[in-house]
Amino acid sequence: MTKKNALYCQSGGVTAVINATACGVIETARKYSDKIGTVYGAKNGIIGALREELIDTSFESDQDIAALKHTPGGAFGSCRFKLKDIEKQRAEYERLIEVLKAHNIGTVFYNGGGDSSDTAFKISKVANELGYPVNCIGVPKTIDNDLPITDTCPGFGTTAKYIATSIMEASLDVESMAESSTKVFVMEVMGRHAGWIAAAGGLAGKTHDDPPQIILFPEIPFEKQAFLERVKYSVENHGYCSIIVSEGVQDKDGKFLADAGTVDAFGHSQLGGVAPVIANMIRDEYGYKYHWAVSDYLQRSARHLASKTDFEQAYAVGEAAVKLAIEGKNGVMPVIKRLADKPYEWEIATAELADMANVEKMLPRSYITNDGFGITQECRTYMQPLIEGEAYPPYIDGLPNYIRLKKTMLSKKLSAFDI
Amino acid sequence: MTKKNALYCQSGGVTAVINATACGVIETARKYSDKIGTVYGAKNGIIGALREELIDTSFESDQDIAALKHTPGGAFGSCRFKLKDIEKQRAEYERLIEVLKAHNIGTVFYNGGGDSSDTAFKISKVANELGYPVNCIGVPKTIDNDLPITDTCPGFGTTAKYIATSIMEASLDVESMAESSTKVFVMEVMGRHAGWIAAAGGLAGKTHDDPPQIILFPEIPFEKQAFLERVKYSVENHGYCSIIVSEGVQDKDGKFLADAGTVDAFGHSQLGGVAPVIANMIRDEYGYKYHWAVSDYLQRSARHLASKTDFEQAYAVGEAAVKLAIEGKNGVMPVIKRLADKPYEWEIATAELADMANVEKMLPRSYITNDGFGITQECRTYMQPLIEGEAYPPYIDGLPNYIRLKKTMLSKKLSAFDI
Repeated sequence: MTKKNALYCQSGGVTAVINATACGVIETARKYSDKIGTVYGAKNGIIGALREELIDTSFESDQDIAALKHTPGGAFGSCRFKLKDIEKQRAEYERLIEVLKAHNIGTVFYNGGGDSSDTAFKISKVANELGYPVNCIGVPKTIDNDLPITDTCPGFGTTAKYIATSIMEASLDVESMAESSTKVFVMEVMGRHAGWIAAAGGLAGKTHDDPPQIILFPEIPFEKQAFLERVKYSVENHGYCSIIVSEGVQDKDGKFLADAGTVDAFGHSQLGGVAPVIANMIRDEYGYKYHWAVSDYLQRSARHLASKTDFEQAYAVGEAAVKLAIEGKNGVMPVIKRLADKPYEWEIATAELADMANVEKMLPRSYITNDGFGITQECRTYMQPLIEGEAYPPYIDGLPNYIRLKKTMLSKKLSAFDI
Repeated sequence: MTKKNALYCQSGGVTAVINATACGVIETARKYSDKIGTVYGAKNGIIGALREELIDTSFESDQDIAALKHTPGGAFGSCRFKLKDIEKQRAEYERLIEVLKAHNIGTVFYNGGGDSSDTAFKISKVANELGYPVNCIGVPKTIDNDLPITDTCPGFGTTAKYIATSIMEASLDVESMAESSTKVFVMEVMGRHAGWIAAAGGLAGKTHDDPPQIILFPEIPFEKQAFLERVKYSVENHGYCSIIVSEGVQDKDGKFLADAGTVDAFGHSQLGGVAPVIANMIRDEYGYKYHWAVSDYLQRSARHLASKTDFEQAYAVGEAAVKLAIEGKNGVMPVIKRLADKPYEWEIATAELADMANVEKMLPRSYITNDGFGITQECRTYMQPLIEGEAYPPYIDGLPNYIRLKKTMLSKKLSAFDI
């Protein structure tokens, strides 16, 4: 059997370690060059695959590929584009197969989150139906940590470490100023649907008296009065109050607080940010001086503060994906299986994409304290190992030495395709 | 001559390395224990001194004092409180002298920025006039980098490194998503009066085509049309646009953009944040998808990403302050003197507080490019060495192992004093 090439796609929001996965895929494929051909990177994910915009990674040196390990963002480009069912998007599927066929691609590595598992699953099924068999391997990634089956999702551990470290540092700042200045600090974190990232902030303190004294989860309907009383308690007893708020916090009617009627000078609503909404609420009630932060993309690109655990898992799933491909597997995803909590032990297992697609793993209620403002020991036991260890990037002139690939494009063989 | 004790005060906004300065003061005083008595820390700065709330650092172990080197925030507490002239606040000055006298304090180390130099200078003069001679030594600190004479201010280099690293990382994220998602990223930074911190963001790129493609300085009156055209150019030519905006950006009439008429649901103005104002402006004009971040206190407490240069200078000014005290100096401040740009060489020099007080060092116009959106080579030559080197804190369980001191309070000898 002639060996075939492979296509690697990054999909959805990128992370600080998704390129470590890319590195795992490419380095492993190079190691098994007798069994697998060139890895092509889809430029901007599936969009690039459909447009036949393929990056030939064979032009990238071993050294540059290795540098992907410590470079955040998506080195090949990613996209938010979900393939629908074949009945609705037959043209796209046929085009994809045409592209794969034109470049002798036998394996697709689809590196993404929940929606991506679904896309990868569809590709794995449809290709066979269309008469060009392709092994489609999902590779997990998402800071949202909401994939089922896997113990955690590569990208989450680093975001968690960043959030916990940041709130710990900012809280020390607020604590030192509180007597005569800022008494309340509000930090907004990502996670519109699930409170995994918000929960990570709780790792910064050991008890509910430690900062962050309050965490607002999307899972817990926001009750203004109870919240304000808790703020007051914290300021009166600790001198200040440090708060993590998830962008997804909703009131009891399911309305996002971030959409709570903020308008700009032109009358446009949703200037954005739940942190200022929360901060203003506190000011209106108590007049406390406040500060707020929205770390936004900083929290998913903070490679400078990568969790070693997360980094190693990100590489390992890339490596495992190639091995699964070599074994001829299709419609599967390498996942992380926890063997022990402390010290943390894990191994790579294999899950069916059919079981991964479109399932969101929510933060269990048992991970949140009864009062709804903190995390439980059960949550700590789960989350603690995921932020452990440091995996610093190299620095040059005081800044991380991140790589930009050459991205040599493969010559197109097909006509253009509009998407 | 009997040796006297010393008082150490932290003043104004704290930094990621102000405790390294505290460590420099205390470790050096311990080394010269034949010449200088105990260092007392004023709880929450000058407020604590006036209230006779003094922390006895002799109860802190050598190990805990050493841990201050890698702990952000103000370990003794800081405050925003400026002593006026003696004619206006005679009672406060007399009280301060009374406290110093009661605890046999012969030296005051005043660790702060511009306002603090002024306070330290006044104390140094007034004490003598009131018949209790005190050596008052200013110790520089401020992320704003706006003290005169000194090459840089301890705290700034770390903030600069954090801002440059963060915009570099977030820009890689945006770049990878831009084809189908976010095209504009806006990051707000501190610096209401001067653009030093905003300028630091420019270190992330080498040319004006690298991110951040646009920096908005408080020194350059904001021109909406020119700005929007630059955003468009960047999106059309690079696929995305990454923007640093200083909180202090003003229009040509001197009005802060952050105050540009934003009102919340209750009609209250100034929800805060110039980043969302800028982001909305772009959305209204072009409809580009955007994200924005406000790092706020994170940028001045990011000890996890300290600049080694900054860290070493922070320690050195603390050490030098004690040596100046031992030499019997009064009304002075150890400052940093640049000897060479590359490789960076510096030494500690001594400045008169009279020359430091109430002088703000502004970002030179020659540090900003002609178009007003970037930094010049002259700026890079100055700023580059300040972010160089890494000085990581130790980690435990995946988080920085920051210290909280015991803060054993000295017994009060005086009656209460209202401030």
